Amino acid sequence: MRQAGRSLPEYREIRGSGSILDAIADADLSTEITLQPVRRYGNDAAILFSDIVVPAHAIGFGVEVKPGVGPVVEQPFAGRGDLERLRPLDPEADTPHVIQTVENLVSELDVPLIGFAGAPFTVASYLIEGGPSKDQAKTKGLMLDDPELWHDLAGRLTDMAIASLRSQVAAGAQAVQLFDSWAGALTPAMYREFVLPHSTRVLAEFTDVPRIHFGVGTGEILTAMAEAGSEVMGVDWRVPLNAARDRLGEGIAVQGNLDPTVCLASWDAVEAQTRAVLAANGGRPGHIFNLGHGVLPPTDPSILERVVELVHRETAA
Amino acid sequence: MRQAGRSLPEYREIRGSGSILDAIADADLSTEITLQPVRRYGNDAAILFSDIVVPAHAIGFGVEVKPGVGPVVEQPFAGRGDLERLRPLDPEADTPHVIQTVENLVSELDVPLIGFAGAPFTVASYLIEGGPSKDQAKTKGLMLDDPELWHDLAGRLTDMAIASLRSQVAAGAQAVQLFDSWAGALTPAMYREFVLPHSTRVLAEFTDVPRIHFGVGTGEILTAMAEAGSEVMGVDWRVPLNAARDRLGEGIAVQGNLDPTVCLASWDAVEAQTRAVLAANGGRPGHIFNLGHGVLPPTDPSILERVVELVHRETAA
Repeated sequence: MRQAGRSLPEYREIRGSGSILDAIADADLSTEITLQPVRRYGNDAAILFSDIVVPAHAIGFGVEVKPGVGPVVEQPFAGRGDLERLRPLDPEADTPHVIQTVENLVSELDVPLIGFAGAPFTVASYLIEGGPSKDQAKTKGLMLDDPELWHDLAGRLTDMAIASLRSQVAAGAQAVQLFDSWAGALTPAMYREFVLPHSTRVLAEFTDVPRIHFGVGTGEILTAMAEAGSEVMGVDWRVPLNAARDRLGEGIAVQGNLDPTVCLASWDAVEAQTRAVLAANGGRPGHIFNLGHGVLPPTDPSILERVVELVHRETAA
Repeated sequence: MRQAGRSLPEYREIRGSGSILDAIADADLSTEITLQPVRRYGNDAAILFSDIVVPAHAIGFGVEVKPGVGPVVEQPFAGRGDLERLRPLDPEADTPHVIQTVENLVSELDVPLIGFAGAPFTVASYLIEGGPSKDQAKTKGLMLDDPELWHDLAGRLTDMAIASLRSQVAAGAQAVQLFDSWAGALTPAMYREFVLPHSTRVLAEFTDVPRIHFGVGTGEILTAMAEAGSEVMGVDWRVPLNAARDRLGEGIAVQGNLDPTVCLASWDAVEAQTRAVLAANGGRPGHIFNLGHGVLPPTDPSILERVVELVHRETAA
């Protein structure tokens, strides 16, 4: 469960009010934050505590994560001249804390650790828009008006995602997850032309570990995203799992897809909706139960405990 | 084109900086605002200048529209006691300015006027959340935890939408459009259980005029929305029109679906994307060309002029 920490009192206590990027830069702290939800919920895997802008921040692009807002960029990417602000990531020099965190976790965890990277499109959208955006208008404008510059930018972000994930796998991460959270804002045609080649290049580098490819609102591009190459496709709550599986065909697992907002309701409602997710999958193998998006901060941890327990009970061999 | 005014200098000039609800309450002003884009662009129909919270505001629920934010509610709907704050709408007493505006427009326009109403779900989501929301969490929580109260609330909003649209049709509106902008946030199962019955009841009242049913991000619920009963389904840019038509089958027209953000790009890009929309429809009859959502304020009006001109040229008999 991504962003599970946000709902935990033990997370709020150790995390304080500083930037998430400072917390990520502290290997002991981010080790503990990654462990907390696994300890509390008994999930079957852990996802590295990270943020999609970690590499861009580490190479000095000038991006911060404002609490309650998200990534904000002092000088957004606006033209060819900005490409040189995106030098290659050298994980050992630029993000040694990430490597250290992964090493710590691998020695402490009893379950697999999933490495974490932002996909080129979603990272680019923050660098171009300068912050969270409702419509990614500038990003789409750059794609349409200067495809060459777009592909140059996305290419550099692809290299960064590869370098970051490679360092995580080398340090022991047993799987990788590529977060293309906002890819669902694109038409299928624009996704295929401007995004798919880059995400494909990232994922092609990690045939040695299971790969998870994630986004929200991606119903119309689910099959295109799957073509990028992964063992698992994330599915948000809008697409019932039976529909997702029909669309994706055999040979690919699905991850999802309880609506995170449901977890704010009473247990009876959460239980019914959790059972509905399991029923939509229909007992087929290759289902990683998860929320369809990150855990919402006001979620009661005891509700998530009961969800994990219910899923474990219902899917026990 | 919905919200076309926002991009027009002549709109900004007469609209000033006051609340949109004040502008709507001034029949002369809202007549002029409705006419402006038709005059400029030569569209084949006009959509009444309005807002989905007009009826709730008119009966005194305490909702305002904050510029740059959207509808905000002083005391959000939180429980059964709030139902009595939603008395029936009496259009002649509560929204005479809307009736007057429609009468003015019908006598001035050479093209059909489309009446305007918010759908019960989307209006309810503002009343419950208290303002724009990323996830409609409280609304979904109310549905799941107190279905009876949800249906009572949605029932009252259904009656209001019917009363408002009936008064617009009686005053001469030649079609109606039901705006369920955020319905795409729901799973198909929740849409069917909590929303479809109410939207169906609204639309069933207007078999005397063409009915358009609109939402964004609705790919997964498009066929369910169509079951509510309408001659036309709005389709956003995420769903290519050929996919939408395959899903919807014969006998229903589609409206859409150029991504409004595309209109911020250069003309070459806009032209290519406009042609792509027409190509996806493939010349089938029953296509109302439109944007997939409202016009964005920074759009250059001359771009929209050229879009309308191109579509007219390409689709001329």
